[in-house]
Amino acid sequence: MKDLRQRIRIAVIGGSRPGRQAAEAALEVGRLLARAGAAVVCGGLGGVMEAACRGAREEGGLVIGILPGDSPAGANPWVDVPIATGLGYTRNALVVMNADAVIAVDGEYGTLSEIAYGKIHGRKVVGLGTWNVQGVEAASTPAEAVRLALEGLGA
Amino acid sequence: MKDLRQRIRIAVIGGSRPGRQAAEAALEVGRLLARAGAAVVCGGLGGVMEAACRGAREEGGLVIGILPGDSPAGANPWVDVPIATGLGYTRNALVVMNADAVIAVDGEYGTLSEIAYGKIHGRKVVGLGTWNVQGVEAASTPAEAVRLALEGLGA
Amino acid sequence: MKDLRQRIRIAVIGGSRPGRQAAEAALEVGRLLARAGAAVVCGGLGGVMEAACRGAREEGGLVIGILPGDSPAGANPWVDVPIATGLGYTRNALVVMNADAVIAVDGEYGTLSEIAYGKIHGRKVVGLGTWNVQGVEAASTPAEAVRLALEGLGA
Amino acid sequence: MKDLRQRIRIAVIGGSRPGRQAAEAALEVGRLLARAGAAVVCGGLGGVMEAACRGAREEGGLVIGILPGDSPAGANPWVDVPIATGLGYTRNALVVMNADAVIAVDGEYGTLSEIAYGKIHGRKVVGLGTWNVQGVEAASTPAEAVRLALEGLGA
Repeated sequence: MKDLRQRIRIAVIGGSRPGRQAAEAALEVGRLLARAGAAVVCGGLGGVMEAACRGAREEGGLVIGILPGDSPAGANPWVDVPIATGLGYTRNALVVMNADAVIAVDGEYGTLSEIAYGKIHGRKVVGLGTWNVQGVEAASTPAEAVRLALEGLGA
Repeated sequence: MKDLRQRIRIAVIGGSRPGRQAAEAALEVGRLLARAGAAVVCGGLGGVMEAACRGAREEGGLVIGILPGDSPAGANPWVDVPIATGLGYTRNALVVMNADAVIAVDGEYGTLSEIAYGKIHGRKVVGLGTWNVQGVEAASTPAEAVRLALEGLGA
Repeated sequence: MKDLRQRIRIAVIGGSRPGRQAAEAALEVGRLLARAGAAVVCGGLGGVMEAACRGAREEGGLVIGILPGDSPAGANPWVDVPIATGLGYTRNALVVMNADAVIAVDGEYGTLSEIAYGKIHGRKVVGLGTWNVQGVEAASTPAEAVRLALEGLGA
Repeated sequence: MKDLRQRIRIAVIGGSRPGRQAAEAALEVGRLLARAGAAVVCGGLGGVMEAACRGAREEGGLVIGILPGDSPAGANPWVDVPIATGLGYTRNALVVMNADAVIAVDGEYGTLSEIAYGKIHGRKVVGLGTWNVQGVEAASTPAEAVRLALEGLGA
């Protein structure tokens, strides 16, 4: 596992109740990131988070979940390294802090907070059917989202 | 001071480098909140935060500042009750958690994160020349912003 | 209220299930701090915290409560300025960060964590029937504890 | 890497400026934990933390570092999975929250705060030349410390 540290990390953020299309997009984003050798960082729970985790794990990728609760056991089953924080929603800031770039899929206000923190911490934020706010680079497909997120990171 | 606890609290959020118009609007928001008997909660630093604090203090209001750093001494001079958190930008979530409603004036990504957390925590968010995102009730003047924020809070 | 900012702040920490003697000591510590013009900072809940808050309020003092939960309404009734954090027990670090010195009365592991954070942040920690660890100055009475805590703070 | 999630996690906590004996003990604790198949969780910086990380990595173990700063790059070179928190010393609570048991080696007040949080969160805490407080099970050697920590965890 000597290469775990070297992997590029991409946060995949999004709502916990996505529609079918958004869930499929998140699954594909996870798969493509794993195939590119990037780790997935997410909030560790359900919906978009779980779909991206599952996609990444199907392709042998590494998945880090940064959880709101105080037990690592609360993570969805596809998370390799669950990190409990006990911070509640305030942990959203930590999700993007631990990524080199961010892909937002769908999502509600939690996702908006993560988009904002991504920009506060100077990360590129790519959007796929998510909040249309200044600073989010819109992508039309999972492949485009992954390409934009990895661009310039040396992946 | 037996009434400190009973006061309605309104978070005034916004950028640390506002233009002149935004700074004047924040000052007026602070004044109007204090005249209405509401406390101002903010991030305790400069720009929109400081202007709102100053306005509130000029009218004898109570000002709570929730700071990113680990020393209460870091607050601007108009804060009555500085609270150090040592959380950095992650403290943004705590600012709105401690308010009954939120007024956003101008602002950049820090403000966007606070708008998002305001909605996550179920607060009404009123905007004055700020991010135009779903869930923010736009106001045209400080007086309208204060009126909308206090509406329904029993002030 | 223009003097709120200038008040020395003393954290009173201790268990949520004190015996009668410890509760009475905490009440007296709160009274003496208020009479000396110092504000009480505490965790905002029951037991030693509530007794100290009540004592301070009986003497017209200012009481700040830094809460584990995400609602200011969770504070005991003697808290003037409740601050919600949503951090759970992790908020213990913030209690002592917001005080100029610390008085520990009785207490269990939560109190031990606050003693440790008091020392991490360079505060004087005075103990009254609490953990006997290096760096805690033992006092025999509430009056001695308050005198030791205020010593050198310019109160 | 499908087994990362299943590994028992042991937090190794201790000072950033250990003497030679404590550093050697931490190195050996790391080695023994890795040989037993357990992951090491720590604060990710120097001293006891770094020695335990190095020992674990020498034996092919997994090392998680939970950092005070806001950049994963701040971890010592032996950390496989650095997690930035931006919480400063307040991150100490998160280190033990993410472990099944705790081994304390040497240490100062930061270590005392982690011992206290270990007990708050119901973890077994084993001590090796560290704070002698109630609830810490004293061990005389790295091997005894690792045996006591793993006892009953199903390793």
